[in-house]
Amino acid sequence: MDSTVPSDPVPNVVDLAARLRAELGEESVPQVPQARYGGDRAVPGASDIFFVLVLPHDVAGVQTTLRLAHETATPVVPRGAGSGLSGGATATDGAIVLGLERLSTIREIDPLDEVAVVEAGVITADLSAALAPHGFFYAPDPASVGISTIGGNIATNAGGLHCAKYGVTRESVLGLEVVLADGTLLRTGHRSIKGVTGLDLTQLLIGSEGTLAVVVGATVRIRPLPVARRTVLARFDSAAQAAAGVGAISRSPVQPAATELLDAGTLADIDAHAGSHIAAGDGAMLLVELDGYGVEEQTRDLIGALTAAGGDVRAIESETEAERLWELRRSSRAAGGGRARLGEDVAVPTSRLAELLTELEAIGRRHGVRTSAVAHAGDGNLHPSFSLLGVPEDPSGQLPPAILAAADDLVRTALDLGGTISGEHGIGTSKRGWLDLELSPASRALQHRVKEAFDPQHLLNPGKAL
Amino acid sequence: MDSTVPSDPVPNVVDLAARLRAELGEESVPQVPQARYGGDRAVPGASDIFFVLVLPHDVAGVQTTLRLAHETATPVVPRGAGSGLSGGATATDGAIVLGLERLSTIREIDPLDEVAVVEAGVITADLSAALAPHGFFYAPDPASVGISTIGGNIATNAGGLHCAKYGVTRESVLGLEVVLADGTLLRTGHRSIKGVTGLDLTQLLIGSEGTLAVVVGATVRIRPLPVARRTVLARFDSAAQAAAGVGAISRSPVQPAATELLDAGTLADIDAHAGSHIAAGDGAMLLVELDGYGVEEQTRDLIGALTAAGGDVRAIESETEAERLWELRRSSRAAGGGRARLGEDVAVPTSRLAELLTELEAIGRRHGVRTSAVAHAGDGNLHPSFSLLGVPEDPSGQLPPAILAAADDLVRTALDLGGTISGEHGIGTSKRGWLDLELSPASRALQHRVKEAFDPQHLLNPGKAL
Repeated sequence: MDSTVPSDPVPNVVDLAARLRAELGEESVPQVPQARYGGDRAVPGASDIFFVLVLPHDVAGVQTTLRLAHETATPVVPRGAGSGLSGGATATDGAIVLGLERLSTIREIDPLDEVAVVEAGVITADLSAALAPHGFFYAPDPASVGISTIGGNIATNAGGLHCAKYGVTRESVLGLEVVLADGTLLRTGHRSIKGVTGLDLTQLLIGSEGTLAVVVGATVRIRPLPVARRTVLARFDSAAQAAAGVGAISRSPVQPAATELLDAGTLADIDAHAGSHIAAGDGAMLLVELDGYGVEEQTRDLIGALTAAGGDVRAIESETEAERLWELRRSSRAAGGGRARLGEDVAVPTSRLAELLTELEAIGRRHGVRTSAVAHAGDGNLHPSFSLLGVPEDPSGQLPPAILAAADDLVRTALDLGGTISGEHGIGTSKRGWLDLELSPASRALQHRVKEAFDPQHLLNPGKAL
Repeated sequence: MDSTVPSDPVPNVVDLAARLRAELGEESVPQVPQARYGGDRAVPGASDIFFVLVLPHDVAGVQTTLRLAHETATPVVPRGAGSGLSGGATATDGAIVLGLERLSTIREIDPLDEVAVVEAGVITADLSAALAPHGFFYAPDPASVGISTIGGNIATNAGGLHCAKYGVTRESVLGLEVVLADGTLLRTGHRSIKGVTGLDLTQLLIGSEGTLAVVVGATVRIRPLPVARRTVLARFDSAAQAAAGVGAISRSPVQPAATELLDAGTLADIDAHAGSHIAAGDGAMLLVELDGYGVEEQTRDLIGALTAAGGDVRAIESETEAERLWELRRSSRAAGGGRARLGEDVAVPTSRLAELLTELEAIGRRHGVRTSAVAHAGDGNLHPSFSLLGVPEDPSGQLPPAILAAADDLVRTALDLGGTISGEHGIGTSKRGWLDLELSPASRALQHRVKEAFDPQHLLNPGKAL
């Protein structure tokens, strides 16, 4: 990669690969791993990084891999589907990349206990699909739900669209099965809804981005499918005014299942990408999902609150139209692709969302960068996008300085507004440079001591998250 | 206390008390602390334990206390209101007892961000009372809500009646202000609903029973008051059948705000204590609260499910009657007092609750002990009570061997059914003897390493929880 890489690890890891092949079988340790296993959607795998890919079929295979890594002091980069957005699965030279994708069994669905037991590599949407015939669903739904895995979602404490009502991944995980740095299998948590025995290692592991242990399975909470759903669409003159609409929802007794804000730039990108017609000049949109009992009354109260906040509001009566709108919303990341672009992820207290959106536009003007935004507005979680219209995407993931400078301004603004540098994507490698802006030296030192309690050799996902 | 107590700490701690008085003021360090500050509701303070009580007025006072404790290697036992039920605040000879009760300011209520910022010593019910005029409430509500503090609730990750729908304390805490063992003030978490920066120290600290740091403040999530509430009462022939009713609720789309099960023994105790008439022979009761939109439809579906499960069900139309029923439910701990009695706290997967209740009765017969039970049945969280009718309560908290043996059988049964030794009260000193039944050696060793990352001198709440 560069001249600072030591020359030793590579021969060592070739030996290690041979040992892993002997223990796990040839096809679990490909001779020539695809470069894509070296990265994620934010930091693509580099072709000049040498790593050993291990794709175990079972938990024992993960234990063997970690045991051998431990014996040989080899770094391990765990990965789910590689759908991450912060470089949390970036391979380093001489490392083992430990892919969990083959641990994809839904071991158990228990509607009476309202839990499911899954392996880490289960695709998140596949779990909800398997639950539907039982009348249940799995609440966490990052926009990547169709490609990301439960294990990856746990590693990043993934959020999504339904968090304001149903919580992030953390709130749906009761227990974990993890492999520690030395290969020991550890079960944490409980199958009951409640449980307070000992330190809550489950909660500590969630969101630790593979730096403490490797998640191989989870006992998750499932919820009964709501009896009804209703989508409400509200148009506002500006993104800031749409954010004021979110405040009106906060003051009302309605708690939507999802409250998504799409600004004019995002709406235009979606229309250009999908051939739809949802943009309306400079206007922004709130797309709200209500669910559960009393949706009629919820709809009435929501329309009242949003109309009073200056919105042009209508309930979507057609289920087809509602589904189409949500599909367009979920397509917003793909829309606007092809050009040099950076998608960001910050969160602020919801009352500051309007200021953040106003400042985003000012930042774009200041740096000559096009900005657009979509937000899980009910959580104050903003995904701004920075792009340069005439500049094509660089396949290596390199970004023009103007985009990086604009993103830096935005992240600092979020912090100034009482927010955080990452709402739901994690820190990975992409956001480590901002850590000191949010965390005190005391906090970082303590986190490193906790890391050492789990991984004294610093082998697990080195250079990430902390 | 006994002959194994070293003689050194006491003179040292007298010097320390003088230094603390000089720094914090005479009235923050009482010359003769009341014995009650040495214990909680499970393990009363012993009169022959010598400790220094410190009651700081502010965060700086807590920092000073911990700084001096750190310098002098003096153990510190943090406490909230002393309403705990597992001996988590038991003073040890020569320790500082650090009471947080004077840190009782609600610093901020923000309906737009849907957060409140409170000091640790705020009584939990006081927060909800302060929120009501804003149209909000704080969801966690242990039965001790009128006497326990938010800080104590955080230390134990307290549960309560509304957890199946609204989550335990953990789900309502966004950020913490804690003082570390050396006196350093640390802020963790975020004010936004989402945030994934770094390891989640907030979640690790919740439920750590004062062994990692001292909680002095919290940013908590508040929720809009539901638009409506409805209480439904269902009678069943037995406790096991009432538990089957809970299963019927799980299979229905209704998600009650509270689902409480009271067995015949508990109902009889309540009637004897309150002069009410809610018992009916050997029958058990489910007391259910529905809330939010569409309570009429929820009530209809709930009555359908519970009737099909064999219940005699009616919706309580009178608000006065509903309030009275909930008040009686909350009085169940006080009812049956005066005699030798142990209240326990376990949780099982909800589908196993019927078996646990049946086994509880068998255990009582086996040991010649009277048993009764109340359960947060929607969470599978059972509070069984073991008593001997002819034997008066021992003020020192000593219990007859038959009661201890029965409780031991019950805890082991809960584990056999896939449950946990503590649903919501914590481990404290009372339940440490059972820790190895639930946690593996690898888990306990890891927890001790995490403890050392926070408190290398082992000064914080020694001998508790871990």
